[in-house]
Amino acid sequence: MSVPNQFELLATDGHARTGRLTTPHGLVRTPAFMPIGTAGAMKGVHWRDVREAGSDIVLGNTYHLMLRPTAERIAALGGLQRFTGWNGPMLTDSGGFQVMSLADLRKIDESAVTFRSHIDGAKVELSPERSIEVQRLLGSDIAMQMDECVRLPAGRDDIERAMRLSLRWGERSKRAFEGAAAGHMLFGIVQGGDVSDLRRASARGTVETGFHGYAIGGLAVGEPQAVMLAMVEGVVPHLPTERPRYLMGVGTPEDLLESIARGIDMFDCVLPTRNGRHGVAFTRFGQINLRNARHADDPRPLDEASSWPPTSTVSRAYLHHLVKAGETLGAMLLSEINIAYYQRLMADVRRAISERTFAAFYERTRSEWEQGDIPPR
Amino acid sequence: MSVPNQFELLATDGHARTGRLTTPHGLVRTPAFMPIGTAGAMKGVHWRDVREAGSDIVLGNTYHLMLRPTAERIAALGGLQRFTGWNGPMLTDSGGFQVMSLADLRKIDESAVTFRSHIDGAKVELSPERSIEVQRLLGSDIAMQMDECVRLPAGRDDIERAMRLSLRWGERSKRAFEGAAAGHMLFGIVQGGDVSDLRRASARGTVETGFHGYAIGGLAVGEPQAVMLAMVEGVVPHLPTERPRYLMGVGTPEDLLESIARGIDMFDCVLPTRNGRHGVAFTRFGQINLRNARHADDPRPLDEASSWPPTSTVSRAYLHHLVKAGETLGAMLLSEINIAYYQRLMADVRRAISERTFAAFYERTRSEWEQGDIPPR
Repeated sequence: MSVPNQFELLATDGHARTGRLTTPHGLVRTPAFMPIGTAGAMKGVHWRDVREAGSDIVLGNTYHLMLRPTAERIAALGGLQRFTGWNGPMLTDSGGFQVMSLADLRKIDESAVTFRSHIDGAKVELSPERSIEVQRLLGSDIAMQMDECVRLPAGRDDIERAMRLSLRWGERSKRAFEGAAAGHMLFGIVQGGDVSDLRRASARGTVETGFHGYAIGGLAVGEPQAVMLAMVEGVVPHLPTERPRYLMGVGTPEDLLESIARGIDMFDCVLPTRNGRHGVAFTRFGQINLRNARHADDPRPLDEASSWPPTSTVSRAYLHHLVKAGETLGAMLLSEINIAYYQRLMADVRRAISERTFAAFYERTRSEWEQGDIPPR
Repeated sequence: MSVPNQFELLATDGHARTGRLTTPHGLVRTPAFMPIGTAGAMKGVHWRDVREAGSDIVLGNTYHLMLRPTAERIAALGGLQRFTGWNGPMLTDSGGFQVMSLADLRKIDESAVTFRSHIDGAKVELSPERSIEVQRLLGSDIAMQMDECVRLPAGRDDIERAMRLSLRWGERSKRAFEGAAAGHMLFGIVQGGDVSDLRRASARGTVETGFHGYAIGGLAVGEPQAVMLAMVEGVVPHLPTERPRYLMGVGTPEDLLESIARGIDMFDCVLPTRNGRHGVAFTRFGQINLRNARHADDPRPLDEASSWPPTSTVSRAYLHHLVKAGETLGAMLLSEINIAYYQRLMADVRRAISERTFAAFYERTRSEWEQGDIPPR
């Protein structure tokens, strides 16, 4: 099965790259950050605002969607884009990671993982073949191979066993993907935990199988940032330059910039929406906790220089009040403020890479974060 | 103290009226429905969507706001409009009703009601004078007199005592309102429970005191709709034709049309947002419960003829899924869908009254409600 390359590299600056990926539902500018619409919805954010905030692509969770409303139902309703009204590119994970973290009574063997649904207790089997079928039914622009992700810390034997299984499941995923509609892509996933030589072996094996793009999975699962970045550094040289590289489940704005500096093109993370629900804003001045009483009487916006209206116009006092009062509107505003911050950061990164000023941009951005919030009034 | 009339009657059709009320923050077209932004936020709806859905005016709850973030804080931040970003007319209640329904350890006497905050247990006193002061600090366009509302059924003696107290509190509220900034209004409230002669006495006394407009309170508190409408019918002839009339806490779309037919100009109710949070949509076809499994595979929107995009484009299947999955987006979409339904209904009512076709409009609308939802596919 051939895997045509739909990624175009536009500029590089050191290891940092900017490019564009063509999907059936439109272009994705890289480096790209994918907000997570777990169960067919972005928590607390209208799709139009996800788009207007600057998102090219979002991530949907296969595990949640296959259980409810089910992949077959979404397919009958015209696919995930039509179902949700998000008319843009969508990447779906394989479901494997969330089976491990959310489902009960899971049993994993060579053929599949078997688990009980956290919704109704029904027994469900997820094999690489079924995962690809589900992602096809969802109409995913970018499907992910099924893999096994080991939570760190873990022993080398466990990590190696899961990594080898992931390679075999990658091959099966690829075979199952044959006959996919034109333009749809399948990404392989490099595993290997925090063990450098296993990471290298996984990268080589995954590239040998051959995918439209390559993800690095099994990181941001409890290890220190330095370990994560060391793994990224060790893996990237073994991935083909011309293909997109996706670091799964990462991360903070700093994680993103550090990883971009090491050649990563794509990211997904729940942080913008999860922190938004918990009253925390991502800003040019670092993370700001709106619960803090210092904001109670502060008429100033989070960042008057932001080009996203809620960030530059809604007062800290109002956000503080909404968060303290448990008003949904607080979570709604902070979630979209955070998505917009991430997407503006990615836009600035893309521009900086094009202009070959990424290192200076990163230094300036980090120094703003480190200066911290504006002084209270 | 003079109470200039800021209401202009544009047309009548039977007892139904359409007009406009001029407030410091803009015009209110009547009949008007006021969605409720209890604690300075509309639950699950961005202010821009409250406005775009057709709302001219919203209601804020004095009780909630005086406790958190406090009226003094909101005043220091420039008033409720500036604080929230809702840059339109706002009516505030007196706080009395919610003291009765939400606070602990309340004690009512001639001078004031004393209670413990449901937030932090602090002891708070709310007198007519303090209620007006709080509403002035909030920057309310329309303040309400302090009254005592008796939950029905209740004995005549209780109802009469509360009604007489409300008359005296109305006078004190009016005195406290003296010196209010130009254009700000104070409405009196007719009480008297479900006892016709007490309602009449209350109307006469309230009008004698003299307010910018007149509310009918103490209804929609447990009595049958027929009783409520009988009370409205009995009170309206005793209210001055040239002043706006506001039926507090009402109600369903049918309640609104029945009351408009009896000469009411303004309404407020939590139903659109509360039902939205519970998965129920108000539509041309009556109320639709999106939890119902009949919607699970239905790609059709709630009402393809609606001019509000979420109503005419978002599928029932998606709304069903969001509601079942407990996704905030479901409550967000249904709340704005419901506000838009109410506001479109009011716009249609205003047009029908102008064209003197209100009775026919009401018959047509009721018959659509009674036909019920479109058949399942």
